[in-house]
Amino acid sequence: SSEALRQDDFVGISFWIISMALIASTVFFFLERDRVSPKWKTSLTVSGLVTLIAAVHYFYMRDVWVATGSTPTVFRYIDWLITVPLLMIEFYLILSAIAKVPVGVFWRLMIGTLVMLIGGYLGEAGYADVWIAFIVGMVGWFYILYEIFAGEASKINAASAPKSVQSAFSTMRLIVTFGWAIYPIGYFFGYLTGASPADSANALNIIYNAADVLNKIAFGLIIWSVAVSESEKSL
Amino acid sequence: SSEALRQDDFVGISFWIISMALIASTVFFFLERDRVSPKWKTSLTVSGLVTLIAAVHYFYMRDVWVATGSTPTVFRYIDWLITVPLLMIEFYLILSAIAKVPVGVFWRLMIGTLVMLIGGYLGEAGYADVWIAFIVGMVGWFYILYEIFAGEASKINAASAPKSVQSAFSTMRLIVTFGWAIYPIGYFFGYLTGASPADSANALNIIYNAADVLNKIAFGLIIWSVAVSESEKSL
Ligand SMILES: CC1=C(/C=C/C(C)=C/C=C/C(C)=C/C=O)C(C)(C)CCC1
Ligand SMILES: CC1=C(/C=C/C(C)=C/C=C/C(C)=C/C=O)C(C)(C)CCC1
Repeated sequence: SSEALRQDDFVGISFWIISMALIASTVFFFLERDRVSPKWKTSLTVSGLVTLIAAVHYFYMRDVWVATGSTPTVFRYIDWLITVPLLMIEFYLILSAIAKVPVGVFWRLMIGTLVMLIGGYLGEAGYADVWIAFIVGMVGWFYILYEIFAGEASKINAASAPKSVQSAFSTMRLIVTFGWAIYPIGYFFGYLTGASPADSANALNIIYNAADVLNKIAFGLIIWSVAVSESEKSL
Repeated sequence: SSEALRQDDFVGISFWIISMALIASTVFFFLERDRVSPKWKTSLTVSGLVTLIAAVHYFYMRDVWVATGSTPTVFRYIDWLITVPLLMIEFYLILSAIAKVPVGVFWRLMIGTLVMLIGGYLGEAGYADVWIAFIVGMVGWFYILYEIFAGEASKINAASAPKSVQSAFSTMRLIVTFGWAIYPIGYFFGYLTGASPADSANALNIIYNAADVLNKIAFGLIIWSVAVSESEKSL
């Protein structure tokens, strides 16, 4: 009986809803691939991979949460360690669909990702002071923001993209700014308020869950929408 | 033995039948996508997602029912919380296939949905008086009906749709009126007759199950049928 989802476990309910929404999104992206022109197909494939990987992790995380009420930190970071690089690949693909992009752009986005996630994990898993780890993570994230707003990636886009791609690119940037900002807020409420992590587990998980909906599903839908409209143009 | 479906458990049998019918419908909608022209494909994708998500939930609900004989309220609402918005998206897509639709239409349909479902959940899960929660849910539903019969959504359709789309739209409206009306009837027999909820569980679940067949499967079939006939025309 401790294994069944209780109707007052709203964090558990959010894990459930999201795991289902992720499955639906995965099927959606994979099916809709056939509607877009070849150069957009890989972008939809990658969007579906992000939600597929997340769906699998959400099933595990959901079970951990429903059975024990504790935060499934290790599964979350395994998920992020695969899906965030995939999202960086999406940026790279969007740019590559319209211009020749130096591969250094890609590696710099990866380094920012690793610093951000390793920092966060060391803090959440108890290997480092939660504040120091937080700052390290923030540095990684700011580096990504720098690259897409002021670095080489941003210049490529401004120079040569058609309107709809430019607007997709800037929406994706806004997601990396405001959508991703939800994660450090979750970390803050989970670890930095002085309350014990067990007491903050509800806030932490519900905030991370909401952030994942936006950053995995909505992010993919933006790519789908530009892919569909660009493909219809070229018909 | 308490885990196996008994041959006199007719509510359990209905859970079983519907979970199978939902799988079949999902496969049907996904396979038939390749027969219709591109602008109709997304509608079939979404129909299949509705039945896919419902199928997964029906497997869980079936197990809860067969093992415990109790109403799987939380799973039903998680299902509805994802599938009803998808049905609202279907309306929006049907309209968008033929005209430019202001995005406000979509958000207003969403708000009606949320009021309806949150109202219902508060009542069924015991967070609010069952009558007050019922009335709140009814208000949300009436608001949806207003929007599709008298609001902006209805005007768009009347103005610019071809015959077959107009008739699909009006069938969909009838489903939202009479098909959806089955749910509050289920709620009524489940909670408002004065009998204890445990005694009313059979009536509640069999009515909700029947309603889901109509509103998920038949609704999708209507969309499939207009998509096929419109696509044949344009060949
Ligand atoms: C800045 C910062 C963080 C940011 C995490 C982010 C931004 C995760 C993004 C995950 C995504 C986008 C997954 C999508 O699939 C941490 C590690 C929480 C804590 C340290 C400070
Ligand atoms: C009006 C009303 C209700 C309506 C529920 C409906 C209309 C659910 C529809 C579900 C569908 C269509 C699922 C399809 O996938 C409740 C919440 C039972 C009780 C409160 C009053």
